[in-house]
Amino acid sequence: MGSVEISKERVLLVLHQPLSPEIESGIREKLADSELTIYETELGVPVPPEIYRKATVLVTFAHLPEIQDSQNLKLIHTLSAGLDHLTHNPILKEGRIPISTSSGIHGPPIAEWTIMNWLVSSRNYDRQYEGQKARAWPDKTPYMVGNHDQAGKKVGILGYGSIGRQIARVSQALGMSVYAYTASPRKTPESKRDTGYIVPGTGDADGSIPVSWHHGTDKGSIRSFLAQGLDHLVISLPLTPQTTKVLGAKEFALLSASSTSQTIKPFITNISRGKVVDQDALIEALESGQLSGAALDVTDPEPLPADHPLWDAPNVQISPHVSGLGREYLPRSLDILKLNIQRLANGEPLINAYGGKGY
Amino acid sequence: MGSVEISKERVLLVLHQPLSPEIESGIREKLADSELTIYETELGVPVPPEIYRKATVLVTFAHLPEIQDSQNLKLIHTLSAGLDHLTHNPILKEGRIPISTSSGIHGPPIAEWTIMNWLVSSRNYDRQYEGQKARAWPDKTPYMVGNHDQAGKKVGILGYGSIGRQIARVSQALGMSVYAYTASPRKTPESKRDTGYIVPGTGDADGSIPVSWHHGTDKGSIRSFLAQGLDHLVISLPLTPQTTKVLGAKEFALLSASSTSQTIKPFITNISRGKVVDQDALIEALESGQLSGAALDVTDPEPLPADHPLWDAPNVQISPHVSGLGREYLPRSLDILKLNIQRLANGEPLINAYGGKGY
Repeated sequence: MGSVEISKERVLLVLHQPLSPEIESGIREKLADSELTIYETELGVPVPPEIYRKATVLVTFAHLPEIQDSQNLKLIHTLSAGLDHLTHNPILKEGRIPISTSSGIHGPPIAEWTIMNWLVSSRNYDRQYEGQKARAWPDKTPYMVGNHDQAGKKVGILGYGSIGRQIARVSQALGMSVYAYTASPRKTPESKRDTGYIVPGTGDADGSIPVSWHHGTDKGSIRSFLAQGLDHLVISLPLTPQTTKVLGAKEFALLSASSTSQTIKPFITNISRGKVVDQDALIEALESGQLSGAALDVTDPEPLPADHPLWDAPNVQISPHVSGLGREYLPRSLDILKLNIQRLANGEPLINAYGGKGY
Repeated sequence: MGSVEISKERVLLVLHQPLSPEIESGIREKLADSELTIYETELGVPVPPEIYRKATVLVTFAHLPEIQDSQNLKLIHTLSAGLDHLTHNPILKEGRIPISTSSGIHGPPIAEWTIMNWLVSSRNYDRQYEGQKARAWPDKTPYMVGNHDQAGKKVGILGYGSIGRQIARVSQALGMSVYAYTASPRKTPESKRDTGYIVPGTGDADGSIPVSWHHGTDKGSIRSFLAQGLDHLVISLPLTPQTTKVLGAKEFALLSASSTSQTIKPFITNISRGKVVDQDALIEALESGQLSGAALDVTDPEPLPADHPLWDAPNVQISPHVSGLGREYLPRSLDILKLNIQRLANGEPLINAYGGKGY
């Protein structure tokens, strides 16, 4: 749409894994307006300075040049959602080069992982899978009395960012009602908005989906949130000293006691970090039946040792921290880059600008 | 809301399976305004005439009284979506008693079954399940290169009734675009509407979700529909002479050839009847890679014999005709009954009236 002439950027893409031919050709097509160099290396093995010096745009997970090799860089785009792993790097401290992140691209995959795990639990998929392996056409009674729908259920989402919003969007479509929880109050329409990158056709840009919003950083606020009769609790909080083990025995008991259903107790989904949950308390709540199940993409520690009791907890579904992965990861991140190359040329603010340095 | 005084109806509920105490107490609560008799029998074992004669409202799957025992009946509500199995019954031929069906209640469970099977396939759930059984924390590469999202995909829905509409609703929330196919043209806003019962918070009441509508009953129309670059095809057609084996080798080849993705070929979901598909052709299309997978809740025949080659087809997910089952089945059907008891008292048209006799 813009009429501004864009000079051909020299984009350096630093990766840790080989690309499939399909993904690579998709990327080359997407960035056809730029001169693209794909450089494969390993974490901890630096990129040669002369490679950095040629680039005007750097796309990277964790590799950054020395200051003296960054003189041509106009933009750094990180392939991760945050930059916690790089905050002490001189490039970030200097703050000369605008930086954008890939925040927002995890909404669809992690929401799909979440919904998949809910439905696998509520619709008895493991029975279907084992029945198929046995080539059996079994009695239908366990499905009739065991299966239940998400329609009509209540989901509480702790942390209403891009991932929580896409979970909310699908939940609403399933016929559920959504309760949002954020650290800071979101009283105004402006504060409810998602101002980061949103994958087209997904999310909750204006924050209109939740039936109610709640906030706080103390245990009391979270406990009030848990006492609303939720059927699902989704943990999508960042890990901070305040959120470490923020969900423990008391919280699970409260959640369970306020459940509106007498027979289907609340289901926990953790897509944040294992340490946000008191894992021993979680195991106990599953064993006692306070919780009907849990889907965990994250554990403490990771990898979870083979002899860890969490594997034995009833109705737990564990995946090895993969909910955000998939072949769309890199192409979507480069969609943000492409928008930002255009914005930089137009002198507009960057999408997903890091630390207010994007202008 | 109505101010009309309702006389206490004597509701007879004929069932083939014992109720769980939880479901039964929910039902008794729901129908607290009526005098409820629950009568358990088996298919083919008649209900005694004196039981029928007392009832003013009959709720049944397949049991109907003789005409002479139906004199007090003001309403018959069937627990099935259709009445094909009862069309020759004298009660239906006589047409005196208003009849309503449970059409519409299958939207949430069958849509949830569908979305579950899509996500299980696209997000590699079987690997997660087997990994958990083995207590393994495996290499993430298969997830990164194998997983893909539904966001951005195109789904074609053959048969846009209550089930197709709820699949459409969730698909849209996932970021997909929806193509609807119906037998008759739906050119006007009125004709696009779903006029039957809709589970609250679900469906597509006004037919606003599809990006385009298509129609026809001939192979040519269906083939045009299949040539639109669909990633998913959902079969939700009634089985008729015209729809028998309506999807065969040519249709699968066409669907595959027009696929927009070069690497993820179309995925088939059949929630209709096994005979709508040429099953041998389906097996071949899966074996040749024309289709990336199939989720089948229905097969031909049922039960599918243990030595049937469909079990061996690559990337097939088979369940034993259970997608509509679950503990919400009966309570939801009785929601329709409750609305209709009120409507009957108010002299209003019934919801889900059978054969225009509901007025």
